[in-house]
Formats: sequence, C-alpha cells, structure tokens
Amino acid sequence: MEVSLQQLVDRLQECGMPTVIEGDPATRIEAVNTLADATPKELGFLTNPRYEKRLGTTRAGAVILGYDVEAPRPMTLLRTAQPYCAIREAIVMIHGFRRHPEWGIHLDAVIHPGAKIGERANIGPYVTVEEGVAIGDDVVLYPGCSIGQASRLGDKVTLHPNVVIYAETTLGSNVEIHAGTVIGEDGLGYAPHGEKWAKFPHVGRVIIEDDVEIGANCTIDRAMVGATVIGKGGKFSNLIAIGHGAKIGENAMFVAQVGLAGSVTVGRNVKMGGQAGVIGHVTIGDDANIGAKAGVAHDVDPKEYVLGQPAIKASDAKRVISITQKLPDLKQRVKALEAELAEIRDSVAPSAAD
Amino acid sequence: MEVSLQQLVDRLQECGMPTVIEGDPATRIEAVNTLADATPKELGFLTNPRYEKRLGTTRAGAVILGYDVEAPRPMTLLRTAQPYCAIREAIVMIHGFRRHPEWGIHLDAVIHPGAKIGERANIGPYVTVEEGVAIGDDVVLYPGCSIGQASRLGDKVTLHPNVVIYAETTLGSNVEIHAGTVIGEDGLGYAPHGEKWAKFPHVGRVIIEDDVEIGANCTIDRAMVGATVIGKGGKFSNLIAIGHGAKIGENAMFVAQVGLAGSVTVGRNVKMGGQAGVIGHVTIGDDANIGAKAGVAHDVDPKEYVLGQPAIKASDAKRVISITQKLPDLKQRVKALEAELAEIRDSVAPSAAD
Amino acid sequence: MEVSLQQLVDRLQECGMPTVIEGDPATRIEAVNTLADATPKELGFLTNPRYEKRLGTTRAGAVILGYDVEAPRPMTLLRTAQPYCAIREAIVMIHGFRRHPEWGIHLDAVIHPGAKIGERANIGPYVTVEEGVAIGDDVVLYPGCSIGQASRLGDKVTLHPNVVIYAETTLGSNVEIHAGTVIGEDGLGYAPHGEKWAKFPHVGRVIIEDDVEIGANCTIDRAMVGATVIGKGGKFSNLIAIGHGAKIGENAMFVAQVGLAGSVTVGRNVKMGGQAGVIGHVTIGDDANIGAKAGVAHDVDPKEYVLGQPAIKASDAKRVISITQKLPDLKQRVKALEAELAEIRDSVAPSAAD
Repeated sequence: MEVSLQQLVDRLQECGMPTVIEGDPATRIEAVNTLADATPKELGFLTNPRYEKRLGTTRAGAVILGYDVEAPRPMTLLRTAQPYCAIREAIVMIHGFRRHPEWGIHLDAVIHPGAKIGERANIGPYVTVEEGVAIGDDVVLYPGCSIGQASRLGDKVTLHPNVVIYAETTLGSNVEIHAGTVIGEDGLGYAPHGEKWAKFPHVGRVIIEDDVEIGANCTIDRAMVGATVIGKGGKFSNLIAIGHGAKIGENAMFVAQVGLAGSVTVGRNVKMGGQAGVIGHVTIGDDANIGAKAGVAHDVDPKEYVLGQPAIKASDAKRVISITQKLPDLKQRVKALEAELAEIRDSVAPSAAD
Repeated sequence: MEVSLQQLVDRLQECGMPTVIEGDPATRIEAVNTLADATPKELGFLTNPRYEKRLGTTRAGAVILGYDVEAPRPMTLLRTAQPYCAIREAIVMIHGFRRHPEWGIHLDAVIHPGAKIGERANIGPYVTVEEGVAIGDDVVLYPGCSIGQASRLGDKVTLHPNVVIYAETTLGSNVEIHAGTVIGEDGLGYAPHGEKWAKFPHVGRVIIEDDVEIGANCTIDRAMVGATVIGKGGKFSNLIAIGHGAKIGENAMFVAQVGLAGSVTVGRNVKMGGQAGVIGHVTIGDDANIGAKAGVAHDVDPKEYVLGQPAIKASDAKRVISITQKLPDLKQRVKALEAELAEIRDSVAPSAAD
Repeated sequence: MEVSLQQLVDRLQECGMPTVIEGDPATRIEAVNTLADATPKELGFLTNPRYEKRLGTTRAGAVILGYDVEAPRPMTLLRTAQPYCAIREAIVMIHGFRRHPEWGIHLDAVIHPGAKIGERANIGPYVTVEEGVAIGDDVVLYPGCSIGQASRLGDKVTLHPNVVIYAETTLGSNVEIHAGTVIGEDGLGYAPHGEKWAKFPHVGRVIIEDDVEIGANCTIDRAMVGATVIGKGGKFSNLIAIGHGAKIGENAMFVAQVGLAGSVTVGRNVKMGGQAGVIGHVTIGDDANIGAKAGVAHDVDPKEYVLGQPAIKASDAKRVISITQKLPDLKQRVKALEAELAEIRDSVAPSAAD
C-alpha cells in the first residue's frame, strides 16, 4: 500500500511512537527497503550505527532514524526515539503480513472422518490429519503437513509446508511453524543392554503454548514421560534441537542451530545465541542470556550473561579470551623472567654464598 | 494398562531385575511420570541424584529407585539395583510402544508397479515408491515418505512422515527413521575448475544396518563411490550430518547436531556428545567417547575420552580448561613476578656491580 | 559404462589432463571404487597421502595417482598431475550423473492453472505449484516439493523430494537443491514490545543465482526487506542456516552445519568449514577461509584464514592453541619462578638491607 509520510507518521503517533518529519510530509512511499537498495519511492531505515555511512549514498526517498544521527547531506528524514519499532510498524502498514494461498479444505488432503476441524480452515493439498485430531478456527495448513493422532491445534495456527506434528501434540493458539519442522519425535532415550541399547518408549508429549513461532527444520522431542513444554510467546529460528522433557519459559528467543539436551529447564525471557548448546538437566534462570556458540554445562543464574565453552560469566569469559589470545606474549614474559632470574642467580648466588 | 506393583515386580524379576517393594504390593499404577508431575495413580522414578530432593514433594503413588537413596518420609518404593533399566521395563509394560495408524496400502500413495512390497505393509497417504524398490514385511511408511529407485528396506522398517530415501539405499531390518530425515543425498564433492567447482557424480550409496534408529531432520550423504555405512544397532538423535563415505561401527550413540565430515571411520560402541564435529578422514577407535561440542581433528584411540576444540584427552582438557579460566590470576602472578624481579634487580644489581 | 584404460586416458587427454599408463592399456574397467573396496574390474584412486599404504593391499584393476608416489609392488597405474580432477572425469565417463525417474507432469501434482511450466518438465507426485509461479525448461521436481506463489525457477533446476520454496523466491538456472531444504522462511526478526516480541513481516525474498547446489535440510531465510542472495556457483552441504538478508558471493563452498546470522556479507570464493558460525552484520572478504567450528565475530579480510572462537588469524590461533594446550606446563613454570624468587628474596634481601 502506498502511503504519504504524513500518513505514516500519524500511524506511528497512534502506536505511541511520536515521529518528526524533516522534509515534505506529502512524499509518497510504496515500499520499505535497506539503505543500500532503496529507490526514491522507498523508505529506508538506520537502526544499526554500522550502516551510518550509507546515509551518504542511499537513494531512499526518506529514512527513519533516531534523533542522535547527523545527516551528511539534505535528505528527507523521519526521526523517532525507537526507529527499530517504527520501521516494523512501517512495514506492517505498507506491506502487511503474508497472504496465504486459499485452498479451503483441498480435495487432495486426507482428513480422518473423526477429526474435528474448526471454522474457515485453509488446508492445502497432501495434508494428512489422523484420527482424533482437533483443530481450531482460522487454521492454515500448507501442503504436505502431517498431523498425528489425537493432536490438538488451537485457533490461528499456521503450519508451513511439510511440517510434521507427531501424535498427541498440543499447539496453542496463534502458533506459527515454518517448513520442515518436526514436533514430537522420540528423544534419544535408551537403557544399556549389554553392548546394545534398549529403547525407551516415549509416551510423553509436546505442548507448545500460545503465540510461539518456530523456524524451519527444527526438531522438538516429545518427553519420555510427561511433557516437553515451549512457553508462551517464544520465538525460535531454524535447525534448533530441543531434547525430550525440556521446559522452556515464556518469551524465549533462540537463534539458529541452538541445541538443548534432555530435561533442560529454561526460565522466562531467555535469549540463546546461534549454535549455543546446553547439556542435560541444567537449569537456566529467568532473563538469562546465553552467548552464541556457548556450551552450557552448569546451571545459569537469572539475568546472567554467559559465554564460552564451557560457558562462564561473560565478563570473566571476555577477560579470559583476551588473555588467551595474548598467550604467546605471556609465555614470552615467563621465558624472559626465567632468563633474567637465571642471570640474577648466577650473579647473586656467589655473593649470597660469601 | 493398569498394573499392581506386585505385577510390575514380577515382570522385573522375569527380566533379571529383582526388585523389593516397600509398601502395599496391591497399589495400582496406570502410568509412569516424572517425580514433579506424577499423580497418586502414577509411578515415579529417581535415576539422577540431581532430583533426589523431589522425593520430599512428589505425589507419585510409588517410586522406583536404587538401594542407596534414603526416603525423606514414608512412601511406597520399589528398590532395585538398576532403576534406569527398571523404569524402562515399567514404561514398556504399562504404556507399550507407539501404535501406528492403520492405512493398509493407502490409495493415495504412488507405488511403482515394479516395486516389491512385503506382507502386512502399512503405507500412508502421499508416499512415493519408485521403480525397482524392494520392501520387506511389516513395514510402516508414514505420509509423505519418498523411496528412490532400487532402494531396499528390510522387515519391520518404520519411516515417520516425510522421510526421504534416495535411490539405491539399503535399510536393514528393524530400522526406524524419524520425520524429515534424508538418507542418500550427494555429499559435498567438487573438484576445483578455475575459480568454479566441478561436481563429482555421487555413484556410491548408503547402507544402514539392522536395528538402527535415526532421529528427525538428519542428513546422511551417499558415498562418492562405495558406501556410507551406519553399523548395526546405532542410535542417532536429531539434526545430525554424516558425510559421504563415513563408516560408523555398531551400537553408536550420537547426540543431536553431531557432524561427521567425509570418509570418517568410527569404531564400535562410540558415543558422541551434542554438537560435536569430526573433520574428514579421521579414525575414531572402538568404545571412544567424544564430548559435547568437541572438535575432533586427529585420530582418537580406542576407549579414549576426548574433549575440547581441538579435542584432546578429557583429563588433559579439563586441566587446561581449569587453568584457562584462571588465566587472569596467572597473568597477575606473572606481573607480580616482573615487579618483584625489577625491585630485586634495582637493589641487587648495584651490590653485584660492586 | 565399461571402458578400457586407453579409452579413459584418451578422454583425460581431451580434458587437458595428460595421463601415463603403467600396464596394459586394454585393461577393462566397469566402475570406480575406493582402494579398500575396489575389485579387479574397478578403478581405484589415491588422492590423499593418508591412504598410500592401501596401495599395498588394494585389489583394484588399476589405480589413478600422481607422479610422486612409489608403488609398493607391480600394479597397473594411471599417473597424472591432477589425480583428483582425473578421478572425477573417470567417474563421469564410467558412471555418469544421476538418472531421474520420469514422471512427465504427474497427475498427482497440484499445479495452479496460472503457473507457467517450461518444456520437458519432469514433475513427480504430490508436488504443489502455487499461483503465479514461472518454471523454466528441463526442470525436475521430485515428489513432495512445494513451490510458493510467484516464485521463479530457471532452466535445469532440480529439486529433490520435499524441498520447500516459499513465495516470491527466485532460483537461477542449473540450481540443484537436495531433499528437505527450505528456501525463503521468515527470519528471526522481532521488535521488543514490553516482555513480548512483535514480529516483523518478512517482505523481502531469496535470490539463488545460477549453478548453485544446496544440500539437504538447509534453511535459507528470506530477507526482512530486500533480498537474501546466494551467489552464482556456490556449493553448500547439509543442515546449513543462512540468516535473513545475508549476501553470499560467487563460488562459495560451505561445509555442513554452518550458520550465518542475519545481514552477513560474504565475498567471492569463500570457504567455510563445518559447524562454523558468523554473527550478524559481519563482512567476510573475497577468498577468505573460515575454519571448522570457527566463531566469526568480526569482519574478515580478503584471503584471510581464520580459526577459533572467537575466530582470529589461523597462524595466531594455532600458536594460541598450542600454548593453551601446554598451560599446565606454563603454570608450573610460573610456580617454579615464584618459588625461586622467594628463595632469592630470602637470601638476597638481608644483604641488600645491610
């Protein structure tokens, strides 16, 4: 949708983000783009100081930014206190959210006659819905999804293509899962039996609470007994592995390729960086922040920020890393000390022995 | 299935796990659950000392545990030498293994007329079976699986939804593969051709031996020539990448997100922790244990336990990590030595120069 | 195809790889295999000195190798300057590339009437092609693939089973994508909204240029705005995560489980080792080489080879690692210095105090 800067600023005002126009409020914008690629009909944004230099070269018709940045030349600007939130609102206003294909309930979907499907279902081809499934209203199931027996999907669930929901899984309302993600497979649970492994039946399940979004090709194990729980409002990127029986609190934010072993407990508002891993049975407190590639082997206190492998307090880890990278220097200093001491010993020892 | 403690103990006795009841043998149990979540009709278990405190608060009707743990209050207990194996047996007895939907051979599956399908096949909708495939008896293929030309599946193979088996793959008997896993894609094999890359046709294949279980969204490359082999009885978690031409011995146990580069040779009974990686052409001996997040860049001896990046003997790695984390202290000590030596030099040098 | 050594050598000659036969040029070869597994009708190869010992035991009817290796016994050899390129050519000549099943446009595929499909399309069962899609000539879509609205696929694109292409994605010509890979899912983009997260609509897209090959179960985020770009000729292994808005130059070579966060810029001819990761907004120069498991937290200069977490110049990293692994020794030396200094202090101090 094309908008004028004035319309956009009015909208931001409504959302509690007062914004000042420097330039012509009638300027029309038809899309949002990066500073590098934006055209004169597009709105750019500066939310990361790394890209400040691009203000000098962008062709964007207008740029959203904070109050603290000086423009290198005359240009049309929208200044606001939270440019990151403002640009999101601009994208929502101008572009809106994804429009799904409209399949109704496609004839090439196999839905068990005993399954319950809510109002306005939008179910694509080659979807399978097994016995005992209950699906809420306004659900979108893209092609190739598979919903196992007795699973429950809340209202406004969106499953992108080829998502697999194993039997007895519960998805809350407003859950969105990207393509290829698998929810509810068995965990790695075996008892040793001589040199062989005897499988634990996995009779637990997965509960995903409301407002969760999960990226593509993730895997969330069902619990061996009880439940693996993904708390309300959590946001997960791609290729994430969550082990059996893990419990993740509300509003989690996990970057791609994170791995949680079994029975990990994660508090509320926890962030995990890319490729971070957590061993089994660990507890991570509320508001903790786990750095990228961290290897968490011990409990993490609430609000703690940890880094490294094994992960320790970030402030300690940064000092350790800094010294480690200068180890050749430290070694040299030890060598110099040894040499000097040997010299002193040679010169002093005799006099001391006098 | 609801059972009495007496029935359960009789079963454990039959399996070679003598168990003593402390409490009423007639107590009835209808499910197994964690100590945290079990109800009075459920059986809890204590196999990890980390959870011992929960004995004080659990509502479980009975608890399986070892002989060495003291109960904090009167409660119904089943004591046995191997509580982990016993609780597995209890789950098998009370809950049993997964019950699959029954599709027969679903009409919405495309099976090449030249493919051979064994007895009692249970093939879901939207499965594709290509030319020359041979499938054993009692096979379960969940919806959306794709079996490439001339592949062979043994008896009692279970493929969960959307598993992809490339052409010419061999799966032994009693193989179970979780949703979204891909077996037999080409490996990363290219010859440099100027700045470009010239692809190696991958004319080898994958052989998965009997009794292997593989988690969800894994990828197992076909060999460039010859075969990638997953040995009998191996158990693999999710999001694991096995490179072209790797040979993995029997009874492997790999945690999620492990990666093996091409042509790695792994012995029998090898365990790999989560997110561990192995570079190409390395050999790992029988009974070796690779720690979580380890980066294996050299051969590993049989029975060796390695840790770290690059991975070294775990005992060495632990010492190195412990000293590394105290590097700020070591640096301080070097600084103190330098200061003291400077002082000594100042005071001693003149007297030495006398 | 069975060939004589003479025929093979003629072909290598044509390709600019002059090759000398030591033995009978009439020897016939019907397949290529590893030294360990080759039979007398098969051609082996030695391209990695690690396997030189196998020359002594191989049953291969002939072996391709360089000029520098001495054979341990009389055997039929093909000597050439680039044995790695030569064996590739031999595999192409003797085995050729994959032969796809021939589906035409399978009746069990759902293709929107408004989609354009080129000549000689080979589309398997259970493929979904949405509205506005345009597909070139000679395209192969294996079963279960899903092509979102308004996506564009060039000529000679091959998508293996269950590949998911989200809406508005562009694939160039001669692109091959292995099973289960997902292209165009939303990235992890949220603005904080109190303790909750407000989703950024992802209105950008993915552009994959010509001659790219992507492994199985990868995930490539669409850009939030603008485009995620995978440059021409890039080769990617499995389980790789590419974040929203990343731009990857030509001829990339990424090993399995690599992860790039959002807005990373990668130059031309960049190699990344297995499980390496890059944080957001970093720039990696042309011809750079990122080691396995490296954690890239800063820009990398062109031609630089970096290692470690955080990644630093490989030469520095190797020195640091070597010293780190000997830290127990360094600590011991500091302890010895301290002891000696204490001794000196005791003996010298009094004389200095005289």
